[in-house]
Amino acid sequence: MNLTVNLTNASYDIIFERSGIGHIDAYWGKGEKTFILTDSGVPEIYSRKVASCCKDAYIHTIPQGEASKEIKYLLEIWQKMCEYSLTRTDRIIAVGGGVVGDIAGLAAATYMRGIKFYNIPTTVLSQVDSSVGGKTAIDFEGYKNIIGAFHQPSGVLIDADTIKTLPKRQISNGLAEAVKMAATHDEELFKRFENADYEDMAQIESLLRDAVNIKREVVQRDEKELGERKALNFGHTLAHALESTLAFDELYHGECVSLGMKVMCSGEVRTRLEKIFDKLSLPSEFPVSPDSLIDICRHDKKCSGDDITIVYVDKIGSFELRKITFSQFADYIKGVSEI
Amino acid sequence: MNLTVNLTNASYDIIFERSGIGHIDAYWGKGEKTFILTDSGVPEIYSRKVASCCKDAYIHTIPQGEASKEIKYLLEIWQKMCEYSLTRTDRIIAVGGGVVGDIAGLAAATYMRGIKFYNIPTTVLSQVDSSVGGKTAIDFEGYKNIIGAFHQPSGVLIDADTIKTLPKRQISNGLAEAVKMAATHDEELFKRFENADYEDMAQIESLLRDAVNIKREVVQRDEKELGERKALNFGHTLAHALESTLAFDELYHGECVSLGMKVMCSGEVRTRLEKIFDKLSLPSEFPVSPDSLIDICRHDKKCSGDDITIVYVDKIGSFELRKITFSQFADYIKGVSEI
Repeated sequence: MNLTVNLTNASYDIIFERSGIGHIDAYWGKGEKTFILTDSGVPEIYSRKVASCCKDAYIHTIPQGEASKEIKYLLEIWQKMCEYSLTRTDRIIAVGGGVVGDIAGLAAATYMRGIKFYNIPTTVLSQVDSSVGGKTAIDFEGYKNIIGAFHQPSGVLIDADTIKTLPKRQISNGLAEAVKMAATHDEELFKRFENADYEDMAQIESLLRDAVNIKREVVQRDEKELGERKALNFGHTLAHALESTLAFDELYHGECVSLGMKVMCSGEVRTRLEKIFDKLSLPSEFPVSPDSLIDICRHDKKCSGDDITIVYVDKIGSFELRKITFSQFADYIKGVSEI
Repeated sequence: MNLTVNLTNASYDIIFERSGIGHIDAYWGKGEKTFILTDSGVPEIYSRKVASCCKDAYIHTIPQGEASKEIKYLLEIWQKMCEYSLTRTDRIIAVGGGVVGDIAGLAAATYMRGIKFYNIPTTVLSQVDSSVGGKTAIDFEGYKNIIGAFHQPSGVLIDADTIKTLPKRQISNGLAEAVKMAATHDEELFKRFENADYEDMAQIESLLRDAVNIKREVVQRDEKELGERKALNFGHTLAHALESTLAFDELYHGECVSLGMKVMCSGEVRTRLEKIFDKLSLPSEFPVSPDSLIDICRHDKKCSGDDITIVYVDKIGSFELRKITFSQFADYIKGVSEI
């Protein structure tokens, strides 16, 4: 059931196992010292279970939410790592969503020039996307993910039990990114999303695993995002602009991405996407008018440049990278709103 | 005259050229945007010359000295890089000594998950040692180099003209590290150090180049310091302990290393080292008594553990890694002071 990510300098397993969180030592050993990072929104029992599998563990908890991807928390983590006398041969384990994984990965990348990092993503969003691929980052000075490093994990554990108790909206939020993988890379998988029963956890698990497998293959072919990996930004340019202005948690990341995807595709693709999004109760309407949206984008650091490279899906299972101007970008937004 | 460093994922040239600083575009192109980092002790004309070879350059100056290897300055640099709208395809050029190179390298390693970094070391110490090998770091919470990354430069330029005007003490400071390379790896080169005329700049240049070549070969064989590269820590355990207690610039890094080397070698090697150090006016005496030195080490984070791995030179041109206890470490210090 496991997937192996093979990279030039490293390879690691993505382990899929229900209740795996309770015996991580079977996969990763007991270690010497383990620094566990989690956040206040993650059930405490998860990090306690992980700690109980370690020889010597220290649990550090940051506040839940994107606001924790700030330098302040990275400094606090570095400080605790020093105080805990973590050495070059010790390890960090992230237990939580994308924010925890991103900041723990960066701490691992930069402590003593890089120590081992393991990731236990506990949200659908992080299981399907950010936990695989080695991207780590914090936000800085209002720029999203601008400080970071590529630092591949030594192992990833996806324990489906951790998502059972999540609210439905959180599950749909993560599935939006899984739909993205299918839309850009795999029409057969996309069809399964079209026909899925989203009340059935076993179906969700199977869709997730196959979406992770696409992510794995893309990362193997383009670890540093020099080409094909950019396809995974489908829907993200607009999503990031939206996220930068919305109040915290007004819309989730996957919800913004679903809106972003609908703008950067053909009418045929849009119709098929919308059917899936409806089943998942993902938002059908933009939270602001097209004109306001264009205005937001005009002030966004990433889409206001003269040349923006966007990912466009003309036909399910494929993608194009298009270099466009801001005015063309605005036209895409208008195009959707006029339908 | 150039040397090429061949690594698994990268290769880059170390260019040796007098006055090369005035036409770096011949090697590295004009670039789009270039962020130049220098310090207040480096002649301004150097960074201005480098800037004049770039299409668009921004010069940022940090205060001279080890105290600038602090998070405060890294944050300031990240901020200026954001403000200057440096992109993923732009570059950083360091113009200065080891501190500038270390912090600029770390900024390059962590900005947008890694951008291009070029190094123009302008001290003998950084030319012979820190500029080659991709180690970047800052000090944090009193721990030396604890936050950092491996980030190989895209190019290194060693312009011997920049060392012509350095005080003699600074030159000897750097040559101490060059002697270290010879002592651990190359007896023939060591003999040339024994017989050199240190008033002759051409001889110094030739010794430096051959010492850099040793560093290059070691880094090629062990980029991440998992084995052989540890040999380059010869003299450093004691040096770091000394540096942590001495007032800033009371003794320079290479001076501390020369004292440290004398402790971790056979009597025969010590005699030969001392002859070279005398010619270079490197310190012959420890600045504190053996008992105080042992006490300093007892409180040092790196040598107070139960197992310290030190580099020992029994015979010139070779080295051993020895795992010893603190009490054995103290015995080495006593051994030298009793001679």
